[in-house]
Formats: sequence, structure tokens, C-alpha cells
Amino acid sequence: MKIQLKDGSVKEYAESRSIMDIAFDISEGLARAACAGEVDGRIVDVRTVLDKDCTLNILTARDQEGLRVIRHTCSHVLAEAVKHLFPDAKLAIGPAIDTGFYYDFEAEPFSREDLDRLEKEMKRIIKKGSRLERFTLPREEAIQYMKEKEEPYKVELITDLPEDAEISFYSQGEFVDLCAGPHLMNTKGIKAFKLTSSSGAYWRGDSSKPMLQRIYGSAFSTKDELNEYLLHLEDIKKRDHNKLGREMELFTTVDVIGQGLPLLMPKGAKIIQTLQRWIEDEEDNNWGYIRTKTPLMAKSDLYKISGHWDHYKDGMFVLGDEETDKEVFALRPMTCPFQYYVYKSKQRSYRDLPLRYSETSTLFRNEDSGEMHGLTRVRQFTISEGHLIVRPDQMVEEFKGCLALAKKCLATLGLQDDVTYHLSKWDPENTEKYIGDAKVWEQTEQHIRNILTELDVPFVEDAGEAAFYGPKVDINAKNVYGKEDTMITVQWDALLAEQFDMYYIDQNGEKVRPYIIHRTSIGCYERTLAWLIEKYAGMFPTWLCPEQVRILPISEKYQDYAVRVETELKKNGVLCTIDERSEKIGYKIREARLSKVPYMIVVGEKEEAEGKVAVRSRFLGDEGQKTLQDFIDAICKEIRTKEIRKIEVQNEK
Amino acid sequence: MKIQLKDGSVKEYAESRSIMDIAFDISEGLARAACAGEVDGRIVDVRTVLDKDCTLNILTARDQEGLRVIRHTCSHVLAEAVKHLFPDAKLAIGPAIDTGFYYDFEAEPFSREDLDRLEKEMKRIIKKGSRLERFTLPREEAIQYMKEKEEPYKVELITDLPEDAEISFYSQGEFVDLCAGPHLMNTKGIKAFKLTSSSGAYWRGDSSKPMLQRIYGSAFSTKDELNEYLLHLEDIKKRDHNKLGREMELFTTVDVIGQGLPLLMPKGAKIIQTLQRWIEDEEDNNWGYIRTKTPLMAKSDLYKISGHWDHYKDGMFVLGDEETDKEVFALRPMTCPFQYYVYKSKQRSYRDLPLRYSETSTLFRNEDSGEMHGLTRVRQFTISEGHLIVRPDQMVEEFKGCLALAKKCLATLGLQDDVTYHLSKWDPENTEKYIGDAKVWEQTEQHIRNILTELDVPFVEDAGEAAFYGPKVDINAKNVYGKEDTMITVQWDALLAEQFDMYYIDQNGEKVRPYIIHRTSIGCYERTLAWLIEKYAGMFPTWLCPEQVRILPISEKYQDYAVRVETELKKNGVLCTIDERSEKIGYKIREARLSKVPYMIVVGEKEEAEGKVAVRSRFLGDEGQKTLQDFIDAICKEIRTKEIRKIEVQNEK
Repeated sequence: MKIQLKDGSVKEYAESRSIMDIAFDISEGLARAACAGEVDGRIVDVRTVLDKDCTLNILTARDQEGLRVIRHTCSHVLAEAVKHLFPDAKLAIGPAIDTGFYYDFEAEPFSREDLDRLEKEMKRIIKKGSRLERFTLPREEAIQYMKEKEEPYKVELITDLPEDAEISFYSQGEFVDLCAGPHLMNTKGIKAFKLTSSSGAYWRGDSSKPMLQRIYGSAFSTKDELNEYLLHLEDIKKRDHNKLGREMELFTTVDVIGQGLPLLMPKGAKIIQTLQRWIEDEEDNNWGYIRTKTPLMAKSDLYKISGHWDHYKDGMFVLGDEETDKEVFALRPMTCPFQYYVYKSKQRSYRDLPLRYSETSTLFRNEDSGEMHGLTRVRQFTISEGHLIVRPDQMVEEFKGCLALAKKCLATLGLQDDVTYHLSKWDPENTEKYIGDAKVWEQTEQHIRNILTELDVPFVEDAGEAAFYGPKVDINAKNVYGKEDTMITVQWDALLAEQFDMYYIDQNGEKVRPYIIHRTSIGCYERTLAWLIEKYAGMFPTWLCPEQVRILPISEKYQDYAVRVETELKKNGVLCTIDERSEKIGYKIREARLSKVPYMIVVGEKEEAEGKVAVRSRFLGDEGQKTLQDFIDAICKEIRTKEIRKIEVQNEK
Repeated sequence: MKIQLKDGSVKEYAESRSIMDIAFDISEGLARAACAGEVDGRIVDVRTVLDKDCTLNILTARDQEGLRVIRHTCSHVLAEAVKHLFPDAKLAIGPAIDTGFYYDFEAEPFSREDLDRLEKEMKRIIKKGSRLERFTLPREEAIQYMKEKEEPYKVELITDLPEDAEISFYSQGEFVDLCAGPHLMNTKGIKAFKLTSSSGAYWRGDSSKPMLQRIYGSAFSTKDELNEYLLHLEDIKKRDHNKLGREMELFTTVDVIGQGLPLLMPKGAKIIQTLQRWIEDEEDNNWGYIRTKTPLMAKSDLYKISGHWDHYKDGMFVLGDEETDKEVFALRPMTCPFQYYVYKSKQRSYRDLPLRYSETSTLFRNEDSGEMHGLTRVRQFTISEGHLIVRPDQMVEEFKGCLALAKKCLATLGLQDDVTYHLSKWDPENTEKYIGDAKVWEQTEQHIRNILTELDVPFVEDAGEAAFYGPKVDINAKNVYGKEDTMITVQWDALLAEQFDMYYIDQNGEKVRPYIIHRTSIGCYERTLAWLIEKYAGMFPTWLCPEQVRILPISEKYQDYAVRVETELKKNGVLCTIDERSEKIGYKIREARLSKVPYMIVVGEKEEAEGKVAVRSRFLGDEGQKTLQDFIDAICKEIRTKEIRKIEVQNEK
């Protein structure tokens, strides 16, 4: 048996050997560090016995897959600790995830104090150093085994395994868990870990099933790496829009109103208004869009034509019952057919195209309440949704325009480096899922590839991700926790005009089907606000701030001058307030900084006498004295050009 | 028997006499003109026999009530003509109305040709001159009589009359109709009439009942008055927003989307955007409002607290079924509780008040589809809805502010003389319908009376029209057909804070209930657009026009200059287009005028050479040549100040 190692060298053995044995054969250090093996490209347990020629890469904590094994073993140690301290807890599942691991238990909610006690117990288990042993059982025995241990979730998991699946367990001392592995050889291999949080989670993510308690944690190969991660986690938590957005009074939620239905409070509503007016003006003034305002609901008849009634009814909010009501309505999940009917309201000529419709459009999705989250998973959202009705010969140019607009919007928000572009293509192996022939698909995909290249944006190609009617570009962004969502989409549609019998009259007087581009120019406003909160940790670019300047009179004597300054700023459209309280100036400055106002203007005797203002900003700290007019000119320019000023002083962050 | 006449003179008769006899006694001319009598202030038939002392005013066509009698008789003549030409038609009801009369028939829809034939037949009947005779029948005989005549609607009407009602009929020749009167003595008294239109109408206005055919008409005492009315009617029809708004491509409706759900097309959507931004900025910048953006739906739990679930459920769109669904939602019919929860999101101090919340809020009302009309009777509408949370001591000042804002908005739109202010008071005869004691109600009403007087607006007082929690001011406007609707409302509410447990902390650290003002600053946007269309016959003030300038190059040679002019105008925010077609300039001007663009700019050789523009406006006609900059300065000022320029040339109308 020849084993080819990663460095190219080859080990020869007469008999079969486990990966751990081979590691020992190479060096004792490697054996101590070994977490898993990669055999012919497949990740396997270090206990795996090799018996024929193969390539082998021994993975350690330095490899992402090695780290996963440490974390997975750490989740077993957590489960053992929970059984020690909370003997009534039932075990569900405990996988490694990208940032660490979690384990779900049927138990009472865990407090931070519980987590601290569990960490202590885990340290004890690790220090003791139990060997992890792997064994398998036949199906019926495995079920019986877990029944005896009174672990109903494990019984359910085994029952649901395929008939021919191998059913493996890992034990560490007294503790045994159903698990496919791989795992470390000994709990001592866990060098640095932390339990980070705990929350409710439905069994199998299904809100009709019991609510379990999930404990999150992470593990690293060194204490330094762990500490770095924990600092990062703290920063993440500070930026989490669902926490920071509430603290900043941008939005709130109310039980009796419902999950996934956030209320935008005055500061959040002001930001959304600023975003909305900007996008509407950008689209209309610079990109030739015309605006529609169409109803948020329609009769089921409309959705029967569009196909939503047959294919998407469960995702829609339906008003009424077809059996008993004369008319059944549904809230709209998209704007397409409404804008199509605006197009169809009169006969169109080839000279009228392209027609670029856009609408600040509120949409509704009947999502499961278990999936709701802050401003990102919601049941109602508002989006600048547009449909371009174009002649086939205009399609490439218009598609390019949509992507150029999206790129410009992202740059204006400072998000250009936080997104990834995806060319979502058809699947040439599964052509029956799509309409149209291979040649057209490949041509269209090449057109889009050229456009993306010309726009100079890096992109990845995802086969099998196209809509059934054509390829599209998806622009995705991640939240602070690394979860990726689609922000912007631009879709090529040479097909659906047929469904709604849309046409135009060409040069020869013939009826011709137009092409359609479905597109957004930024993401839905709620989600975009969430991304902006997390991107800027609440310290938005000045033009987006709901409060751009706070005027701080040194004492009540300067209240009149403060009001004069406020009046001048407001006249110039600057959003400002006065802190009129009789507090010390240092206190007022601290409070203004905490509420993330970009500019503070301090006014006292000297300023009033000279018609000046003393400016402090989050960007430079003390910006010195300026005449009021100079300050107004500067901030108005910053707002008008949507400048994103750099923060150059650390302490202002 | 002493009869005191209107001029103060007294007639004495030994025996009882009919009004018509007394009219003859005064003069034959008066007898010929007599339509009805007013006896001790009550309108009665001229056939009425007087038998005791009373005051008598003999009414002729010059009196509104006299004219009503002519019109009522005319509706009988119409019914007779219908029975002649359409013997299968069944009679429903045929009253006089403010502008004429109508009659409803069970019949096939009537065409204009049918109406013309009916007019001819009516003229024949009138010329022939049938005397109208009144008679009564006992209840059972009356029912039997109408059964024999196969008039099921009349049978139903008689059946529904109170047991002790007198059941009277009027005959004219062969034709007999159930009727309470009064009527003319002879059909010859009808001097000038016209059938104006025909449409479907539900029996008793109830959409679950059969659809009948209604014929509208009017009658006057002279041909000249009739012709004047018909001209006015033509003007009304031209202004009717439901016709003109569609012709101008401001909105459309689509069967498969549903009634009462209009689609705003690009021009209409632009006007709404302009209105919305203006109102939002006016409220925020000049009146201290802060904005919210809250969900369009909520769980039934919320509406149970607000009381809507018990009292208004039929008017709401409900999503889901309480019996089968875990959560039931409803679309909101108002914004109140959503803004209350924004208020409740943190503890408020007396120093925080007043808090003036406003939201561009979309609301839903589950109205019957039979009641839908254009932009005025709709199922979904958007309104600038606000709630002011104030201390009791701030209430009068804030209420005044709300009315002052409404008055300013109306003046800006040029609607200030088209509305009536109503002080809606409680009903001191039915105090059990209201909460609070008489003293507080009277004080509050006096406060509002003072405010209205101070604002210098004429108002009427309507007892019994208050909300159960307090008095309010309603500002009403009429559509072209004279139908009145409430546009703006400002409501005094010292009570409902209790229901949602709203409070603030006063100077002494005690919890105190705030007062609330419910208010709008203009009517809902859809209806306001309808009023504006009708007020201006589509010729909106320039600042509201979706197309403010059309540039008309004399030939293709001046296309480049036209584009330069367009670029400059757009840079200054002026909404403009170029008519690039190679049509004659006269034709382009006519088309621009028809599409109601306020300014046309003609550019040719002279204009290009001198950097000028030749301006034509709907206001002055030819405004002569100006430099482009002068034109831009003038139109930007007109837009910025929201000027309503007078139309001073007749032919431009």
C-alpha cells in the first residue's frame, strides 16, 4: 500500500494502518496535532484505517477542517457537561459551524451564569482527558440503546436514517453520543474554547415542533486566537443591527402588532425617507425612469395569470376564501404584473421603448414567524422595484444600465467592497428546468459576462441558479454574523411578456413581444438600513444621519445665539437640534457622541461675539472655530455630494 | 278661515278651499305658475284643501321647492314614456334630486338613442297635456292594485310602508304611479327638460339586490335655464376626474386587479410624489412633526385593544381565520395605535411633549365593490396621518396649529374657497352616546369655536356629529356633481390614552394621561388628486404638473439646441420633454395645449442664435422671447413659491 503525502513524498506499508498510526510514523508532534485526515480529497476521522493506495493530508488546527473537528469534539464536551449539571436535559444535535459550534437541548433556558458553570465543568472534563472511542451498532440495537438512555431526539434521528446507513457513536468516559464524526482522539486536544451565547431554537428548525435551547460556543487552537475572536464577536454584537438599531431608536417591534413587522421610529423613518428620495431622484433624473404607484393587493384573478396562485400561494397573504367569498384578494409579493398593466393601458410603438418603470413598492411575504429577524427577515418590506420594457435590440444596453445604476448606488452607500456579484446561469445538465435552447442561453450568459467585465466588477458564476426564464445577476451582501443575502437582482427575461400578452408595434406595423428586465437599484429599504447600521456601527455618513448637527450652548446665556444658528442650518436643510439642558458642556459632548451625531457645534461668548461656531466632529475631533457660513457651506457640500468622510481620530469611534 | 299670504295680506274665506283655488282667486297667472304651496312652513301639494287659519306661500318654478315639483312630475312623464316604448320595464322609484330627477327601471340598459326616443315620447305626453289626479287606497287594495299592474317593486314599497301611512297614487291619463307627491296639476306645466344620462344602480342601493337601470334628467322653467344647465353639465363632465384623469393618463383601473384599486400611471404618480414630499417637508420643517413608518398590518390582538375588532371588523381586510390559524392579521384601517406604540417605546417626561407624529400612511377599507368610484371611493388610500401627544395645558395651542396647517395646505392648493368647515359637536339631547360631562364638552366646543374664529374661517356647527370621545373639526369639499366628502379632520381626544395605557411623568414624578389630537393636513392623496383634477380641469398649477415645459423645435435642425435647453431646465429641477417629431409647429403646439402642459418653448434659428426661447403659456398665450436664464429664473420661482398663475387668455382654457 502506497500513501502519497501532501509534500509529495510516499510512504509504503505492507499492511493496513490507521491515519493516526501513519501520523505517529511521521512524527510524534504531528500525531499530537492531528485532528482529521483528507483521503483522496475526502475528510475522514483520524481513526480511519487505510488499506489501499491513496493520497493523504493530515489536518491540524491550522486547517479550517481540522478546526471543525476540534469544535465538534468541544460540542460533545459541552453535552457531557450539560448532562452532569442538568441531568434532565435531553440531547438533540450539536454540529460544528463556520464560527464554532452549537448544541441543542430540551431544557429550561440557560442563563449566562449557567454558561459560566458549564464552562468550568467542561474545563474539568478536558483536563481529565477522556479518550474518544468510536463504535457502531445495528439499527434496532442503536434505537434500543438510546431509548434506554431516555434520549427521544436521538431515537427520532436514528429512525429517520436511511436503512443502509452505518450508525456510529462516540464515547468519552461515561458519556456517549450518536455521531458520524470525525472527532479528536482525546478531549485534551481542545486548547481554548468559550461558550458565547444561548437562545431558543425549534427542533429541526420547524416552528410546529418543540422549542429547544441552543448553546453557542467556539474553540481555537490557541488562547490568543480565541481572544481575538471574542473581541471580534464583541464588535459584531455592538454592530448587530437588531441590537444597535433598537438602542439608537431607529426601530422597535411590538408583540401585539406581530413578528416581522418592525415599526420605524422617527430617526429610522427619516433615514428611510432620505434613502427613498435619493433613489427616486437618481432613477428618474439620471437614468430615465418613470414612476408608478400601484395597489398593494389584487384579486386572485391577477395571480392566476401570473402563476403565483398555483406556485406561490403559501407565501402570500390571502384575504378571503374562494369557497365562500365573491372576491378573494391577496397582498402582492412582487410588482411585476401591476407595472405590466400600466404598460398595457395603451398601445405602444417601437418608438416608445425602452419604458423604464420604477416604483417605491411595498411587498408582503407570508414567512413563518420562527424565521423573523430585526429588519432583515420581515413580512412587509419596501423596495425600489422596476421593470424595463425594451425592444430585443435594446436589451444589452439596458441591462448594462441597470447594473451600472446598482454599482453607483452601492458606491454612494460605501458598500461597493462589501458585496459579491454572481452571474446566475442555467444548468446545462438539467436543461428541462428552463425554457429556451442552449444557444440562446449561452449567448445571453456571454452578454452578461461581457457587461460585468466592462463594468469592472469581480464576479463568480453559479450554474443552476438562473430563473427558469433567463439568467440574472445577483449582488449579495453579508451581515455581521456572516450570513449572506441577496441585496440587488437584475434579471434577463425574454419570455414572460407572452404570459401577459404584452406587445409593441414595430416599424412594419407588426405586433412584437418586448423583452423585460426585472431589477432593483438598491436592496429593500429595511434590509439596506440593517446593512448600513452594521457597516457603520450606527455612525452613518452625514447625508444619511437623522440628526446631522447638535448645537451645544455653553450656558443658557447663549440660547438665543444657538437658536439663530439652528434657524440658519435648518434654512439650508441641515437636520439639527439644540441641547438646551443646563448640563456641563463636557457631559453634553459625551452624550452627543454616544448618540452618534457627526457634528457638534459649541457656542459660547466668543462664538456669539464673532458670529462663529466651534466645531467638533466624529471625523477629526476638534475642527476648530469657523464662521457659521463656512461651516454651513462645508456641511451642505458634504451632504449634497453624499461624501463619506473618513474617521481619522480613534477615540471618536 | 284667515289665510295670511307671503306679502303680509290676508284672505278670508267662509269655507275650506284648495290652494289652487286660492291661487286662482289671487290671479290666473299665479294659478298657471303654481307648483306647490308652503303652508305654515310645510311644502304641500297645490291640491291640498285648507280649512283653518294658516300662512300660505304659493311656490312657482322660481322657488327651488317649486322647481322640485316640476322635476318630480317630469320623472312621472319619463316613467309613462318608458312604459309606452318598453312595456316590459318594471317601475322602481323616481324622485326629484338637487340637480333634476331620476327614475329606476328593471329593464335592459338604455342607449343614448333610447333616451332620444324617450324624450320625443315625453314631449308628446306633455303636449297632449294630461291632468294629474291624486287618489288614495287602503293598504290591501293598494297592494292588489300594483300586483295586477305587475309592478313588484311598487308592491315591495307599499309592503314596507308603516301600517298607518296613507297610500297615495297620482294618475296622468292611463298612467298611474304610487307617489306621495306633490305634483303639478297638468303635465303641460313642464316647459323645458332633458334626459342627461343613464347608468346601472342597485335596487335600494344594495349590491346584493338586483341591478336596475337609472335614467337621469333635469327640468327647468325656461329653455334658457335648461341650456345654461346643460352647458354647465358639459363642463362638469369634462372635469369629472374619473373621466379626465383617465384621458390624461393619470390613473387607470384593471378588472383582474379589482375595483377601488386604481393604478397611478407615471403622470399621476409624479403628482402624488410632489404632493407627498411637499406635505412631509411642510409638516417636518415648519410645524415640528417627526415621522414614523409603521407596518400596514397587525395581529388581531392590536385591534382587540383598540376596539376595532369588535366594532369595525366588517370594514377591515382580515388575513386568516381565528378558528384555524395560529395568528390572524388584519390590514390597518387607521394609524393611531401604531403611533401610540412608538410613543410607548420609552418613558416620556412632561418636557418631551408635545410629540407630533406624522406618517405617509397607507390604509385599507373593505368597502363594498358597488360603492367604488375613480380615485374617491377606493379600498386602499394613502394619507398624511398624524397624532399629537400633548399635555392638557398644550391642547388648545396644538389644536390651533393643526387647523392653521390645514388652512395653509388648502390655500397652497388653491382650494381654500371650495371647502366648508364644520364644528362637529356632541348631541346634548343624547348625552349617553358620549363620554364626559356637559361642562367639559361645552368648554371644549367653546375652545374650538374660538380657534376657528381666530383663524378667520367661516364654519357651521353640527350637533350630534362629534366622535364619542370628543368634538372635532371636519373640513369638507364637494366633487363636480356636488357630492360632499370629508377632506380633512382634526379631532380632540382627551380619553383614548387610557385605552393604550399611555402616560408621561409630570413635574412631580406622577404618571399623567396625555391628550391626543388625531389629524390630517390634507385629504388622502388619491382623493386630493381627484379634487385637483376637477378644480383645475386638469390644468394644475405649474408646481404640480408632471410635465411643466414642452420644448418644441421648429425643425430637426434645432434638435441640438432643444437638448441644450432641456439639460439646463432639468439641471434646475424643471420637468420637461422635447417633442422631437417632424410635425408642423402649429400641430405640436395644439397637442401640447391639449395635454395641458403649462409652458411651451418654441426654438428655431433666431432663438438658437441669440440663446433665447420663445415662450407660450396657458396663462398669457404668447409671452414673447426671453433669454433662457430669465425663463428658468421665472419658472423656478413659480414652482418654488407654488404660485397659482391666473389664466388670462380665454382660448387657452
